[in-house]
Amino acid sequence: MFKVTQADIEAAHERIRPFIHHTPVMSSQSINEMVGAELYFKCENFQKIGAFKARGGINAVLSLPEAERKNGVTTHSSGNHAQAIALAAKMAGIPAYIVMPETAPEVKKKAVAGYGANITLCEPTQQSREETCARIQEETGATFISPYNDYSVITGQATCAKELIDEQPELEIIIAPVGGGGLMAGTALSAHYYKPEMIVYAGEPEGAKDSYLSMQAGIITKVDKPLSIADGLLASMGDKNFEIIKALVKDIFLVNDKEIVEAMRIIWERMKIVIEPSCAVPFAAILKNKEVFQGKKVGVILTGGNVDLAKLPF
Amino acid sequence: MFKVTQADIEAAHERIRPFIHHTPVMSSQSINEMVGAELYFKCENFQKIGAFKARGGINAVLSLPEAERKNGVTTHSSGNHAQAIALAAKMAGIPAYIVMPETAPEVKKKAVAGYGANITLCEPTQQSREETCARIQEETGATFISPYNDYSVITGQATCAKELIDEQPELEIIIAPVGGGGLMAGTALSAHYYKPEMIVYAGEPEGAKDSYLSMQAGIITKVDKPLSIADGLLASMGDKNFEIIKALVKDIFLVNDKEIVEAMRIIWERMKIVIEPSCAVPFAAILKNKEVFQGKKVGVILTGGNVDLAKLPF
Repeated sequence: MFKVTQADIEAAHERIRPFIHHTPVMSSQSINEMVGAELYFKCENFQKIGAFKARGGINAVLSLPEAERKNGVTTHSSGNHAQAIALAAKMAGIPAYIVMPETAPEVKKKAVAGYGANITLCEPTQQSREETCARIQEETGATFISPYNDYSVITGQATCAKELIDEQPELEIIIAPVGGGGLMAGTALSAHYYKPEMIVYAGEPEGAKDSYLSMQAGIITKVDKPLSIADGLLASMGDKNFEIIKALVKDIFLVNDKEIVEAMRIIWERMKIVIEPSCAVPFAAILKNKEVFQGKKVGVILTGGNVDLAKLPF
Repeated sequence: MFKVTQADIEAAHERIRPFIHHTPVMSSQSINEMVGAELYFKCENFQKIGAFKARGGINAVLSLPEAERKNGVTTHSSGNHAQAIALAAKMAGIPAYIVMPETAPEVKKKAVAGYGANITLCEPTQQSREETCARIQEETGATFISPYNDYSVITGQATCAKELIDEQPELEIIIAPVGGGGLMAGTALSAHYYKPEMIVYAGEPEGAKDSYLSMQAGIITKVDKPLSIADGLLASMGDKNFEIIKALVKDIFLVNDKEIVEAMRIIWERMKIVIEPSCAVPFAAILKNKEVFQGKKVGVILTGGNVDLAKLPF
């Protein structure tokens, strides 16, 4: 039924396993008491490059045939996918051309440069990102790797929920954030194959609620100027992701920036781990909709920890 | 030779095991490259109450005979030992009377209150702490539990290095911060019993270098007005701790507040974990004295993660 099969996810996991961390699953008694549920946080903030995007990026680059990878790869990203592709290209010994919105956090630009990638800054709009990337493709012959609307990226991201379900097979619910939809689609696919009775939810920032609107309308619906402190979730849903998310995700919960920052603060204070605002969105959704999660075993994908310490929202 | 035996450490570990977390040991490739050594961080920031002090506090309270514990327990602490005793007393079902310097971080005062302990604020001097505690003992009949100068506290803290050596038996060096000396003495004892050839170092803030001066002089030497961002390390070395530290610790490295904040920032950014300034002192010492650690397998006790997010030094 879906273009990504269970065998694809397993092949991707074998392909990327030597290059990624098997991240830990953490729990917090005080957070469980606060919510009235058992939360199992899959800590992708401890992943290579500090975010789950290492999985999809590495899988995508390593899956490219020789002819397509020889002139290098290019992508656009506010940060984590950029680092993932830069790292994957470095591993593969090919050039990476990364388009980043000029508003991306300094810490992310620095990290991308640290992997030896070529950075081109653009305006912080979907259009400017795509145009800049297209120009680079023409000039260099590099292969474009979408941050999310790509089956090999989705398949790589799916390995995260696969590991979580392997470790906590009793989960009843799983929740992840949705931006472009790569992680969300991958999470939903792993739930579908490895624990079909599990309910799948998404969390999304109110200021970038294109996925929510798309689910309501049944067709992809864009938001004009997406804006949220969750800077990793501003991209618009891709059609490949939407097809999967529409079929497998039960509901999308919206949260505002204040709720995101409060959820982020609670995780920092209680769990002693550094997460970025985008990463706090599913937990913010849980705090806002406790009745949905009451008494349940809930898997939460913590997506990343790349924050600019000089610009914290506390 | 020492008042605390290997059997004491093992008994303490059994006693506290049901009440504490077996904390993870973490590594960071980028930090290892930065230092030129293999560092194994024992993450006591993930411990109950967010710090290693849970070990010593729980061991001390649970080791008290019935007659001594019935009127409750009292102590003075800038925060983490306070929480440890408050938690241990709650577990034992006895009252806790906690003396805290008025300058202690809000987050620590709130946490102590959260365990149902009675808090008395005092001036931020050793004298005021001790006098206030003595008055409370007289009024309530509570048993005083020293934050560090107590064999059952030292024995509890020793279980931390014991776990680290169990997990990483190849360690060649171990380093911890020194304030009052409870953790440092416990760490040195576990090294002595479980890996005698391992070299033991301490890190200490320059603004509170009483341990450094004491080691130089061969007798306990106080610092008049200790001051450092590492607020957990301002207490003066106890005589029980000094006896052990003098015999087993090879050297104490001093670091200033700027070096502590820089080390803290690197751990937050690279490891994505929240640590408090006191906790960054040993890593700051490693960064400052790289030649000592070059090519070695080094165990680093990360002591705690209780920071006030509203007052970060970045």
